[in-house]
Amino acid sequence: MESEYRYQQLENWLLQGILEQRWRLGERLPSIRTLCQEQGLSKATVQHALQRLEAQGLLEARPKAGYFVALQPDGVKKPLSRARIEAPRPVSVSDLLLDIMRRSAAFDLLPDLHSGDLPPGIVALNRSIGRSLRRQKGEDYQYYDEPAGDRQLREQLALHAARRGWSVSPEQLCITSGCQHALFLALMACCERGDVVAVESPGFYGVLQLLEQLELRVVEVPTSAESGMDIDALEEVLERWKVRACIVSPAFGTPGGALMPLASKQRLLALAERHNLAVIEDDIYADTAQGSAPDPLKALDSDNRVILCSSFSKCLSRDLRLGWVSGARWHDRIQHLKLVTQLASSRYLQQGVAEFMADGGFSAHLRRQRNELRVNRDQLIAELHAWPGEVRVTAPQGGLAVWVELPEHVDTLSAYGEGLEQGVVITPGPLFSVSGQFANCLRISFAHPWNASRTRALRRLPELLRV
Amino acid sequence: MESEYRYQQLENWLLQGILEQRWRLGERLPSIRTLCQEQGLSKATVQHALQRLEAQGLLEARPKAGYFVALQPDGVKKPLSRARIEAPRPVSVSDLLLDIMRRSAAFDLLPDLHSGDLPPGIVALNRSIGRSLRRQKGEDYQYYDEPAGDRQLREQLALHAARRGWSVSPEQLCITSGCQHALFLALMACCERGDVVAVESPGFYGVLQLLEQLELRVVEVPTSAESGMDIDALEEVLERWKVRACIVSPAFGTPGGALMPLASKQRLLALAERHNLAVIEDDIYADTAQGSAPDPLKALDSDNRVILCSSFSKCLSRDLRLGWVSGARWHDRIQHLKLVTQLASSRYLQQGVAEFMADGGFSAHLRRQRNELRVNRDQLIAELHAWPGEVRVTAPQGGLAVWVELPEHVDTLSAYGEGLEQGVVITPGPLFSVSGQFANCLRISFAHPWNASRTRALRRLPELLRV
Repeated sequence: MESEYRYQQLENWLLQGILEQRWRLGERLPSIRTLCQEQGLSKATVQHALQRLEAQGLLEARPKAGYFVALQPDGVKKPLSRARIEAPRPVSVSDLLLDIMRRSAAFDLLPDLHSGDLPPGIVALNRSIGRSLRRQKGEDYQYYDEPAGDRQLREQLALHAARRGWSVSPEQLCITSGCQHALFLALMACCERGDVVAVESPGFYGVLQLLEQLELRVVEVPTSAESGMDIDALEEVLERWKVRACIVSPAFGTPGGALMPLASKQRLLALAERHNLAVIEDDIYADTAQGSAPDPLKALDSDNRVILCSSFSKCLSRDLRLGWVSGARWHDRIQHLKLVTQLASSRYLQQGVAEFMADGGFSAHLRRQRNELRVNRDQLIAELHAWPGEVRVTAPQGGLAVWVELPEHVDTLSAYGEGLEQGVVITPGPLFSVSGQFANCLRISFAHPWNASRTRALRRLPELLRV
Repeated sequence: MESEYRYQQLENWLLQGILEQRWRLGERLPSIRTLCQEQGLSKATVQHALQRLEAQGLLEARPKAGYFVALQPDGVKKPLSRARIEAPRPVSVSDLLLDIMRRSAAFDLLPDLHSGDLPPGIVALNRSIGRSLRRQKGEDYQYYDEPAGDRQLREQLALHAARRGWSVSPEQLCITSGCQHALFLALMACCERGDVVAVESPGFYGVLQLLEQLELRVVEVPTSAESGMDIDALEEVLERWKVRACIVSPAFGTPGGALMPLASKQRLLALAERHNLAVIEDDIYADTAQGSAPDPLKALDSDNRVILCSSFSKCLSRDLRLGWVSGARWHDRIQHLKLVTQLASSRYLQQGVAEFMADGGFSAHLRRQRNELRVNRDQLIAELHAWPGEVRVTAPQGGLAVWVELPEHVDTLSAYGEGLEQGVVITPGPLFSVSGQFANCLRISFAHPWNASRTRALRRLPELLRV
């Protein structure tokens, strides 16, 4: 955070205090004078930070009285509904849900591509790729890259993991065409047709589609939008049915951005060992963490059974189509499957990205993005706070979306079509399960800035959803 | 061919005459004076063309007597051995063969990447991609491309097909990560585990690996290195066993570069209809044709059962990782499988390639490459002609390799390891079948220019192979 301005440091510190409930909803913050003295800052700096938090709806300025906590993300009413445990079943995703999935992959309330300025991180990234193209020499273009992927990129990814505090060697990584491709290879490597796979509910719809295509059966494990997969429920599931693999996203998984506590991770791994499960970890949101990225489950994997899958799509660019997998005991098979189904990845592209990472461009991009995502998230939560009726919402410390639970009578799926007619893409709750549950829930993304047209779309939702 | 020099036109015309046996091995060509008169060319132009053909080993200049045909590609002894028909079986590819496959994908006798100048076509291609990156705007990078792929690229591919004389609409195309990926999606879409798939023998090893991973059974159909799959043999196979799909490469398929005659194509399609087969056409070598690219099987597909698979890897760059598939009645399922297993392809990359095609860069590249490949091929055949013992070799009118049949005692597989120690990568015949046949055969590629080190490697082969 060395590149931050002093007002940003104060802003972060105050925000952290609100999140940690040092100051609770309605409480008064220390005075401007106190803040100046304690933090060694000028009055202008302190005021700037307070005004920014006020603009984000987190503080309320009361004349002559000071700044009060107006919204307390952790204090926002949390979602209640839990999935039921049901017997394993084949997956069949309807055409309507497929249509919604396709549109929802953009994480946007608006349906079309939008122009505007590219963020500096993407400009730098594209320059790096361009340089890599110009550096291509001789007959390089005549050769396929090795199936594991470019060595330099794997080294950079290993360094990136090391900075986060866990250790993976370049040999333990295989480059893929994105995280979905990594999940596909992982499932192909450790499951056979008809096997049962345990997933989060609500959880990532892309996994449900994979299970359908690979003819695997699914058992949904109730998952808290705050703390991830319910390990008690998982234990019950494992005792009742023979499960081959379990897919989890401990770090800010979609839809709610839950963060799995360390104790749950440890219990999960102990269960995996006892029941001989393959654990597939979807780590794609780790780098969207507001604080430091949490350790992956894989860092605790002493039994070599956690397959980590990730990509650059959520933290850098969805158009790179570059991901990676660390396949534990299935790694050789995964790498072979990549070779057989796709031969290789683009060498020039991987080298361009590797150089972008080596130059520090990726870290700088993540820092900028983190600040932007926090602002986007807080504005969204402030907006939701103002909705009529009982609205429950997660306040994730990472990820790109919140999970919103609305009163029982709301039917988000039936509002989808009407939304499209009005130029608003909503992501209804039933998408995140095959059980038909979560009809009164939806995911709302804060991946994009709340410009005028997006804010208009957001403000149209209560009426559209008949909240 | 409008951009060719006049000597090149004459050179092509003479070459065509030699290939069509207008002048046979040992015969004298028309005199320089006759050629000048008949073709309306200057003496210098005629001499230039003749000298070039002499340098390629196709003509021999005899002082005071004129130019004689020294080598007659179609007159080179043709390979004889045919595969046996054996019952369908599961595929199991050994580790040794896997290692060979990985190295052989480079189509090179030398093991390492080499420097040198990039061909102008690749320089132009990379510039186009760079421009496309710089044109990326606003939040484009935040969105996934549509699963079918970039519209502009699919339009360019449709135009490219139209120039070749057959018709496909952009809606009938889906962009993939290369031809292997297209073949994978095609097999996943039309087969189920345990199904029997008919393949060419000898044929593309990548297909055998796919069948292994998808747990499909293979039946090998004897295939001529000159005219492709033996349709009589296919008919016998279809009468004896229930076959779900048939994979063929009618245009210059590896290893021998065979060209399937029109009558065989028509019989194949009639058989496919009678036995309700899916026909998967690997069209990846079509654009390496020395003359105009032959119609694909797909152009004759009135019953909507030919899945065409192709990519830019053999005719432009192996490092693009861009291919396409036109999936006939299975197209929707193929496109859905692409979405589920990989979400999308890079938009900026597709747009860069589309622009390269629209600018005429691709056509120009193909023209240049065609000439280079012809020279490479003819030099290779001339070299093989000088080998001791009975050497039989194909003289393909396209593709990147010849199929060489050596005396029975030769064991190409056992020479592979020794070759590696000497820095020579050979591609042994047994790679192209699961039957253990073709021990005395090998594929030799002419994709790369015969520079000094490659020529040295080539000349080491007779001793290495104990010919």
